[in-house]
Amino acid sequence: MATGEFDLIGQYFTNKSVLRDDVITGIGDDCAILSVPAGKQLVVTTDTMVSGIHFLGDANPADVAHKLVAVNISDIAAMGGQPAWASLALTLPSFDTEWLSAFSERLHQQLQRYGVSLIGGDTTKGNMTLTLTLQGFVEQGKALPRHGAKAGDLIYCSGTIGDAAAGLKLLIDANNPDNGISENTHEAALMANDKDFLIARHQRPTARVSTGQALVGIASSCIDLSDGLASDLKHILNASSRVCGMALSANIELSALPLSTALQTYVSKARWPQYALAGGDDYELLFTVAAEHKTQLDEVMAEHDLPYTHIGEIVSVAADQPKQIEQPTQQQINYFYDKQLTPLVLQGWDHFQ
Amino acid sequence: MATGEFDLIGQYFTNKSVLRDDVITGIGDDCAILSVPAGKQLVVTTDTMVSGIHFLGDANPADVAHKLVAVNISDIAAMGGQPAWASLALTLPSFDTEWLSAFSERLHQQLQRYGVSLIGGDTTKGNMTLTLTLQGFVEQGKALPRHGAKAGDLIYCSGTIGDAAAGLKLLIDANNPDNGISENTHEAALMANDKDFLIARHQRPTARVSTGQALVGIASSCIDLSDGLASDLKHILNASSRVCGMALSANIELSALPLSTALQTYVSKARWPQYALAGGDDYELLFTVAAEHKTQLDEVMAEHDLPYTHIGEIVSVAADQPKQIEQPTQQQINYFYDKQLTPLVLQGWDHFQ
Repeated sequence: MATGEFDLIGQYFTNKSVLRDDVITGIGDDCAILSVPAGKQLVVTTDTMVSGIHFLGDANPADVAHKLVAVNISDIAAMGGQPAWASLALTLPSFDTEWLSAFSERLHQQLQRYGVSLIGGDTTKGNMTLTLTLQGFVEQGKALPRHGAKAGDLIYCSGTIGDAAAGLKLLIDANNPDNGISENTHEAALMANDKDFLIARHQRPTARVSTGQALVGIASSCIDLSDGLASDLKHILNASSRVCGMALSANIELSALPLSTALQTYVSKARWPQYALAGGDDYELLFTVAAEHKTQLDEVMAEHDLPYTHIGEIVSVAADQPKQIEQPTQQQINYFYDKQLTPLVLQGWDHFQ
Repeated sequence: MATGEFDLIGQYFTNKSVLRDDVITGIGDDCAILSVPAGKQLVVTTDTMVSGIHFLGDANPADVAHKLVAVNISDIAAMGGQPAWASLALTLPSFDTEWLSAFSERLHQQLQRYGVSLIGGDTTKGNMTLTLTLQGFVEQGKALPRHGAKAGDLIYCSGTIGDAAAGLKLLIDANNPDNGISENTHEAALMANDKDFLIARHQRPTARVSTGQALVGIASSCIDLSDGLASDLKHILNASSRVCGMALSANIELSALPLSTALQTYVSKARWPQYALAGGDDYELLFTVAAEHKTQLDEVMAEHDLPYTHIGEIVSVAADQPKQIEQPTQQQINYFYDKQLTPLVLQGWDHFQ
């Protein structure tokens, strides 16, 4: 439906894509035509980023492209899948060649990094809204679901958590110097490279594709950390409770949470759980493993560079509290510090937005 | 990335979908998990509709949903494919339960009509922008491409054309009474049901799925009429010229164009080609058939209710005019009226927007 100048936008995205044998027809016909390998199932995910909501209106277009791809591929990583094909729906307020060049260049770099072909899309005029639909493969019946956790399973996460929220806080404070430095953070103590690290974790996340694939056959459930560990763990608990017919809860050991040195320097210790559990946007993997698969996990992850950390256990809720399945509340997760039950009230991040 | 009230939007779209055996996991995990039947290839298309660009801000939400689905499925119909799965990216300015109810109800009706499961999506806050990504199947190697037309092929289109543009004109005139009735149209002569027919053709198009499937193995090329016959035929000519290495042109017989009685009543005869060739949004199929397949076409289409009309031929351009491949111009299509070459200048529809 694009008209005039907008037809030209497509030129930034055509014939620059990764070539894949399974793309029979890419951009240029009514539909793309694709071959799914025998024995594989298809996994599909869609994410939208809106200017002024998911990124600042003056955000670097390369960063926007970077995150758009990473966030989508992260969903495929969380299934233990291999990303393959992407469709881009690009709504832009104007034909801005500088923005388009920077955005498309990074988009192609990012897709190439993950081996993904851009197979189609649509360009339209309107407020800046970017929707990417990604498709990938999993071995038949081997996808990592949210709903497979069982009582007794160990809870792990990859990498470090809370960094992206700290990076966002740094950016917001830089844009609002009148805010001063929050009493809960210590920006002055941060080295420049730590600051860059935290901001990069917010702006340019990495999807954990090879980690997700390594977990196939080992993890009982998996999700990527987009909303924050506390929220995302509840998705696992709710889905798994429904499937096993038993109310599940989680015990999390706060002293075990994997925090970067940069985060520990920037944020007061009392606020570490807030960043690590409610921060979101880290795109690490949160997963559960049955105790009998722990050795297998350790062997497989020993071949990976990415750290992984045991942070808690799935437990069954006493039978006299069945309501928790229908009405999930904060009590679904019990927090401990050095094995002592620790009450914890997490704030939402709305005050950041 | 949705937060708070926006999480509730998903409830309008969950658990109301067509059940399909090939949807292993639908809405509710990081990705949908899908099985592609053996021997089939996947076809994928994405279309975006923006409020104020593709539909009026106060458009009936049911009509918006109707068209969003039809326009996307039409792309699969043009490949001769069978639609299967849809992902919806919904960006909305506010949580408007009335709008969401009307929109989601028609969306589900429409998807059901075409046998499509809603398998996922994303809901975000922003200016109203709707992106639907549709997936379907074609028999291995049997998709109807744009690029298969050859010199001598007969050109056909399904149904009647120009109706949607006439419907749009009626709506615009209704919204701008000061415009008066254009000298080229005769709104007063239109019966109410003709008016309703034309407006419905604009607001609630039908994707020609069974027609596309019937053409598999018979048509040499196919495209759906979204931009208007003149534009869409050029897509076939350009793609086919590149593939066969020979500059192709088309001869179109204006007296053969299939026009509805409503259009013939509403629009002055001199303006019929303008509506039929430059109107767009009819979502009929435009296709070419080698002369030796004509009998087969007639036999297959005899079992269909939908009319189809022979409107012209593909011809090869004289060898001394090779530039036309690189620089397609209006001359790629020659118009005839009762076999007399007829110069024709088509206006764009920008003045309608």
